[in-house]
Amino acid sequence: MRIKIVWPGKTRDQNIMDLQNAYLEKINKLERCELIETKEARGLAERMEKKILAIEANGLEKHMKDDYIICLFDKGKEMHSEEFAHFLQEKKANSVHTITFIVGGFLGLADGILKRAHFLLSLSKMTFSHELTRIVLLEQIYRSLTIMHRRQYAK
Amino acid sequence: MRIKIVWPGKTRDQNIMDLQNAYLEKINKLERCELIETKEARGLAERMEKKILAIEANGLEKHMKDDYIICLFDKGKEMHSEEFAHFLQEKKANSVHTITFIVGGFLGLADGILKRAHFLLSLSKMTFSHELTRIVLLEQIYRSLTIMHRRQYAK
Repeated sequence: MRIKIVWPGKTRDQNIMDLQNAYLEKINKLERCELIETKEARGLAERMEKKILAIEANGLEKHMKDDYIICLFDKGKEMHSEEFAHFLQEKKANSVHTITFIVGGFLGLADGILKRAHFLLSLSKMTFSHELTRIVLLEQIYRSLTIMHRRQYAK
Repeated sequence: MRIKIVWPGKTRDQNIMDLQNAYLEKINKLERCELIETKEARGLAERMEKKILAIEANGLEKHMKDDYIICLFDKGKEMHSEEFAHFLQEKKANSVHTITFIVGGFLGLADGILKRAHFLLSLSKMTFSHELTRIVLLEQIYRSLTIMHRRQYAK
């Protein structure tokens, strides 16, 4: 199974970027995983929300194709880590070729993107900054793969 | 109101440590916040769980005194960020002098510590590594204070 993670714009915080790369490296030892940073809407005021989301949706859509799409969404389903690992394991067992995680920018995701998702996932009731969300997602993917591969994961 | 955060052992991951310090600096601009790293049980096999938790409980207890104690616990109560901000605001309004957050080490917290808590908080249904938990908690405290102080928080 291939894992694709797609989000708009590069991570700006250098520590978060370094953590992100460290998790990606660990994940890739267990499953093929690719990170794609798509076009980010820049230089628009926050009140132009619809326009920002539409620009970002344009970039994200190009990478959604026929994959199994999981969008991160605050009103999505919450799962325990074990359930999440089981969920990914099941997709793999059902010969899903690529699972694509879509993570929104600082304003989230356009409705059109959410509607195309096969699954809406929430990492927490709490709202995390969009850059912290990236790290939490990567850590959960790594944790799930170690559970799937029955490896010891350093707590 | 004073905020104290107590956990056993120094953060080992340098990126997480740097993020942690960045959040602490931002929090301290809004409310007095102190981080205390207590004694960590080292060199014991994981199967010595009770012993490890007891050693760490010893260090944590010294900093619990008469404060309002919130322990992070995976079976604790989950809150939306707005609820969490409201909860902290209420403590402040009720003249709570110090709120102390206790975060467990890689094996969590001893029962004796959990029993002394006034509130058990869960950041997510998912299990985060104990070092990532530190960052998520700090981000949520910062987010809550910006909500309390009605400031704009960069998403």
